Amino acid sequence: MDRPVSGNLHTFFRPRSIVLVGATDKSAWSQLIHGNFGAMGYEGQVWLVNKRGTPAHGRAAVTSCRDLPAVPDIAYIFVPTDAVREALEDVTEAGIRHALILSSGYAETGADGTEKQAGLIAYARDKGVTVLGPNSLGFINYADHIPVSPFPVGKDYLKGHLAIVSQSGATTNVIANFAQQQGIGLSYAIATGNEADLDTARVIDYLAGDEATRVIAVFAETIKDPAAFRVAARKAAAAGKPLIVLKVGRTELASQLAQAHTGSVTGDDRIFDAVCAQDNIIRVTSIEELVVTAGVLVHTGPIEGGVAIISISGGACEIIADTAETAGLALPPFADETRAALQAVIADYGAIFNPLDVTGAAVRDPALFQRILTILAADPAIGLTACVYDMPRDGGDFVDRTALTCIGAGLAASKTPGIMINQAIRPVGAFSQKLMAELGIAAVTGGLDLAVRAFAAAQRWSERRIRQGERDAGILRQPHISAARPASEYETLAYLQAKGAPVILVRRAPTADEAVEAWRAIGGPVVLKIASSAIQHKSDIGGVRLNLDGEIAIRDAFAAIMAAARAAYPDAAIDGCLVAPMRPGGIELFVGTAQSAWGPVIAAGLGGVWIELLADTSLRLLPIDQAEARAMLDELRARRILDGYRGAPAADLAAVADAICKIGDAALALGPDLVTLEVNPLLARSDGVEALDALAVWSDG
Amino acid sequence: MDRPVSGNLHTFFRPRSIVLVGATDKSAWSQLIHGNFGAMGYEGQVWLVNKRGTPAHGRAAVTSCRDLPAVPDIAYIFVPTDAVREALEDVTEAGIRHALILSSGYAETGADGTEKQAGLIAYARDKGVTVLGPNSLGFINYADHIPVSPFPVGKDYLKGHLAIVSQSGATTNVIANFAQQQGIGLSYAIATGNEADLDTARVIDYLAGDEATRVIAVFAETIKDPAAFRVAARKAAAAGKPLIVLKVGRTELASQLAQAHTGSVTGDDRIFDAVCAQDNIIRVTSIEELVVTAGVLVHTGPIEGGVAIISISGGACEIIADTAETAGLALPPFADETRAALQAVIADYGAIFNPLDVTGAAVRDPALFQRILTILAADPAIGLTACVYDMPRDGGDFVDRTALTCIGAGLAASKTPGIMINQAIRPVGAFSQKLMAELGIAAVTGGLDLAVRAFAAAQRWSERRIRQGERDAGILRQPHISAARPASEYETLAYLQAKGAPVILVRRAPTADEAVEAWRAIGGPVVLKIASSAIQHKSDIGGVRLNLDGEIAIRDAFAAIMAAARAAYPDAAIDGCLVAPMRPGGIELFVGTAQSAWGPVIAAGLGGVWIELLADTSLRLLPIDQAEARAMLDELRARRILDGYRGAPAADLAAVADAICKIGDAALALGPDLVTLEVNPLLARSDGVEALDALAVWSDG
Repeated sequence: MDRPVSGNLHTFFRPRSIVLVGATDKSAWSQLIHGNFGAMGYEGQVWLVNKRGTPAHGRAAVTSCRDLPAVPDIAYIFVPTDAVREALEDVTEAGIRHALILSSGYAETGADGTEKQAGLIAYARDKGVTVLGPNSLGFINYADHIPVSPFPVGKDYLKGHLAIVSQSGATTNVIANFAQQQGIGLSYAIATGNEADLDTARVIDYLAGDEATRVIAVFAETIKDPAAFRVAARKAAAAGKPLIVLKVGRTELASQLAQAHTGSVTGDDRIFDAVCAQDNIIRVTSIEELVVTAGVLVHTGPIEGGVAIISISGGACEIIADTAETAGLALPPFADETRAALQAVIADYGAIFNPLDVTGAAVRDPALFQRILTILAADPAIGLTACVYDMPRDGGDFVDRTALTCIGAGLAASKTPGIMINQAIRPVGAFSQKLMAELGIAAVTGGLDLAVRAFAAAQRWSERRIRQGERDAGILRQPHISAARPASEYETLAYLQAKGAPVILVRRAPTADEAVEAWRAIGGPVVLKIASSAIQHKSDIGGVRLNLDGEIAIRDAFAAIMAAARAAYPDAAIDGCLVAPMRPGGIELFVGTAQSAWGPVIAAGLGGVWIELLADTSLRLLPIDQAEARAMLDELRARRILDGYRGAPAADLAAVADAICKIGDAALALGPDLVTLEVNPLLARSDGVEALDALAVWSDG
Repeated sequence: MDRPVSGNLHTFFRPRSIVLVGATDKSAWSQLIHGNFGAMGYEGQVWLVNKRGTPAHGRAAVTSCRDLPAVPDIAYIFVPTDAVREALEDVTEAGIRHALILSSGYAETGADGTEKQAGLIAYARDKGVTVLGPNSLGFINYADHIPVSPFPVGKDYLKGHLAIVSQSGATTNVIANFAQQQGIGLSYAIATGNEADLDTARVIDYLAGDEATRVIAVFAETIKDPAAFRVAARKAAAAGKPLIVLKVGRTELASQLAQAHTGSVTGDDRIFDAVCAQDNIIRVTSIEELVVTAGVLVHTGPIEGGVAIISISGGACEIIADTAETAGLALPPFADETRAALQAVIADYGAIFNPLDVTGAAVRDPALFQRILTILAADPAIGLTACVYDMPRDGGDFVDRTALTCIGAGLAASKTPGIMINQAIRPVGAFSQKLMAELGIAAVTGGLDLAVRAFAAAQRWSERRIRQGERDAGILRQPHISAARPASEYETLAYLQAKGAPVILVRRAPTADEAVEAWRAIGGPVVLKIASSAIQHKSDIGGVRLNLDGEIAIRDAFAAIMAAARAAYPDAAIDGCLVAPMRPGGIELFVGTAQSAWGPVIAAGLGGVWIELLADTSLRLLPIDQAEARAMLDELRARRILDGYRGAPAADLAAVADAICKIGDAALALGPDLVTLEVNPLLARSDGVEALDALAVWSDG
């Protein structure tokens, strides 16, 4: 792809001067965009351009960007669609290097629009102009109070460390408003629109290096450039910045809608799940979850350990316990010293649980909040303390300043981060924020359900971050492309073996005599299989005979297989049979690779009913390492079968994981013409693992 | 149980006069409770009682309820725990028939407290006094503005049709506040506390008959009286009032916490799921879901059909589509006439989906909202229309009165209910409600995630309501208790057959000669099984031989089984063997009954890995009818196997469902001494179903 190397978007997202192309008092868009400069207190230069040079918004205007007193850092173009090309040419000729296009009528409208968009961007790229849009509602840089967007910002916006990136303009606004409603400060809100040039990946890449941004929240309909997205995601992770994504298109209907909405094709959703697992992306399913999870992580950063939660409400503790189990939040039991310290503070406790019901005692003696939270923060297994207590809002809420002060002090008692939880979700507006500042409460989240799920996501992200750091070097290695081009089962097994994968010893027997000889060499019951790269479904045509022992049995089977194969495929080239030892027992797995928009992927699962009825497979992008292969096995619903089932011995999991890795590497090395490399079955036993059958399919085969 | 028959709680929850026992200016509780009368404008009589007759809250007080000028309808007791008994005696002797006890220190504190509580309630019952509590934060009757609770109500409370019932006092308040924040009016909020006398079931029963209440939302830690709860749930359903329950104790930790909190034992959670399925209870997992679902149902009532949703945001439509699939919400495609009508209104539409992206066109021409919603409401498959559009709040939100008026008119266009959806959850406060009233918008819910899940729950409830109405008569029948007491496999199979269940023909063969004779009568391969009620795990001791044909084979097998059984159980009474025909093929199911706190339950599932590894069973309380048995099969993850798998023929589902019903009825008829009746396997084939083996276990067996 002819992607321009304008790596640094610093000037784009921090312009010191802006020209509005299409500015007019008649347009609501123009009014909103211009009005934001005053509302936010933008300190840079603003110039206006329109066709007739008519003054607008109380300012003079010129008819061309070339007539401006200086070259602006960015042009925001919102002329009618038919006039966009001309406007962009004027912008370009004026020497402007960054353009934001609000005008719509492009890829989101169908084939004609897609073509028009392609022409526009080809021109911009040719001239070295970086474009956001078209169909983009722009961006707001809260950190530097620079609004280049019609979204109403208002005067009381909260500046902070959360950056929002969204392909849908309306949704950008909804997410930003909800974050502000929840008292979460923003660094950026960026609507990427049709992403004809700049896309979500490029913006994430920029934000990963942006000082004001600690957490990146993304709403995505499609990922235009999967490879760049993965690199950007890893860059964010390496910078310690959680990337949280609400990606639609989980269902067929949503995919169709996305196509209609911004001309996006959403792609295979299960592969995106694999990307999230591998690149430590937090995937969420609602706007509320996106924002609440981001808000928690802005405050906590990586969480080193379990979470301790206290409440004066037994009901809240029970809801937390249930939700924690569903969400996978670790609420570790407290250490003995912690329990002893708690008992010293509150003598009449019976059982001590996490979450801890501090009962009405803490209402009568609010100092207990501080003492208990301080004790919990010191527990070696605890990486985050949380206290359930509703943050008062304006308009009638009772304000217990003593209790809130004690809670604030307790949550800030040690280096372990602490956060307050509202029982049901509620706004954290100016009144609440003022109280928080006065009483020393650094952060509040909620309600119980969203908070617990956010903690669980933050905990998983923190754990994966450590693992990822250890593994990135290995995972990002590029395979050496092999010249091999295995076609038949025999060749494919031999290729896998050469690549270090465990493979059963298979002998070629062009004749019955050679089959008998092979059986003698093996010295026990064998399998005979038709050897022909033209015949893929061997069993279906009677091309496989199991458990053969003795010369007569071998000869009979050989003759029967040949006859069956010739009957089914009269014209196929047949190389006789393959002879392999019988392998009784063991667990049959399936391992297969495929190409995708995200690159080659590998799937693994147990055979039979597990794959066929439950679609119980685990998916990853290649390459993977052994730890990732182990994680794949751990995700399977049939996982317990590998530990031994109904008295069967357990599989050697390390050997299975290693075999999956080796198969993946072997597939990668075959390059992009390989459609699929399938090992089915991969037989796992307690003493090792073997590929019993393998198949390679080529795109030009 | 010695439950008093004070069926009608009308006076309890609508008292015309109230005495506060323990009233004092020194107590915050007392101040809060008394303050609510003024705040809410309680119109009845209020009297105060305390030990010394000290005036409080600006009122006179007396030392005994007997000194009051009249007998109050209810006494609210909040004296110290040690003084409660004496206070209750005074209340009783004054002729008061209803007492509410706030004081704590009872069952929630352990064994001593439980005993104290039992004594208190025994006394009250003996005297015919109905008690709510102890450890109850009382109730607020919003419909008649009667507060008997320390919860701060305020002056601006919203009266409406949602009743809240909660065992946890703090949680009652959280739920009520969240409902009010969401603009949902209340009829009642009732904190049932320890439920020593009045319990959740009795309160639901009362609310099912309460005119002001349309929807009942419950937070429950335990169900004290399962049978009464089921009757109350069915009464609510029959009255057309949805019952929505947030029941904690889904996990072991939550169960332990509930025990510590209100002395509750939460019981087997899967059985409660079965109760919800059978009695049409909507089960939710968060406070937000409880309230939002209730709010939707207050407005819509039963929904007759699918839901149609429109939005000007493509992003919102995609989120809705994804969430609908996960939540199981039916968004039916529109009828041809609907599509034609839509196309006439908005000619440039490409594809028409549900949810419908009405794009910016509706922003430019808000009349489109009304036209489109009116068209959708007329679609025969649509039972609810919804429009995504944020309801403005006080403080800066832009108010597009034209658009909102058009949306209101469109949502109210026909008899099909209509509702507006906020994109992210936000308060619906006084400002929003005033706008709604002015512009004709009847109801608003949100955000997208909660709204879609609420619609799905409302839709399921509405569908089940129709089914339930048709079936209740049959389901509530009581079985005739049989005198039978089958013990051995032979007896149990014979008993099942007598009860109409399909059972394989099994012959008794005390001797080898008789076994041979049985084989001859069967005329093909048979199974021989040891016949002894002392031996349950027959296969484990070599007590089963399969696929026997020919006299010699029968005699050999008979001898071998006898020898094996005598070796394993030297002292057991052995009745020879059972002889049954071999049944090749088919699908093996497991059906078993058990006793529980909720009464006898039945479980069904496929055998083998499905039960052992996936715990893939479906559970119901007995009795069930065939439709319920079919629903059980449909819930199984292995469901598709019954349709035929890998070329196997499909099972006769009607026959399987009938067999499950008959086994359930047969178990019920054996009465409460039966521990379990197990049929394993129940063999399902395309041409019928048969119990191949059965076992009855007795509590005194």
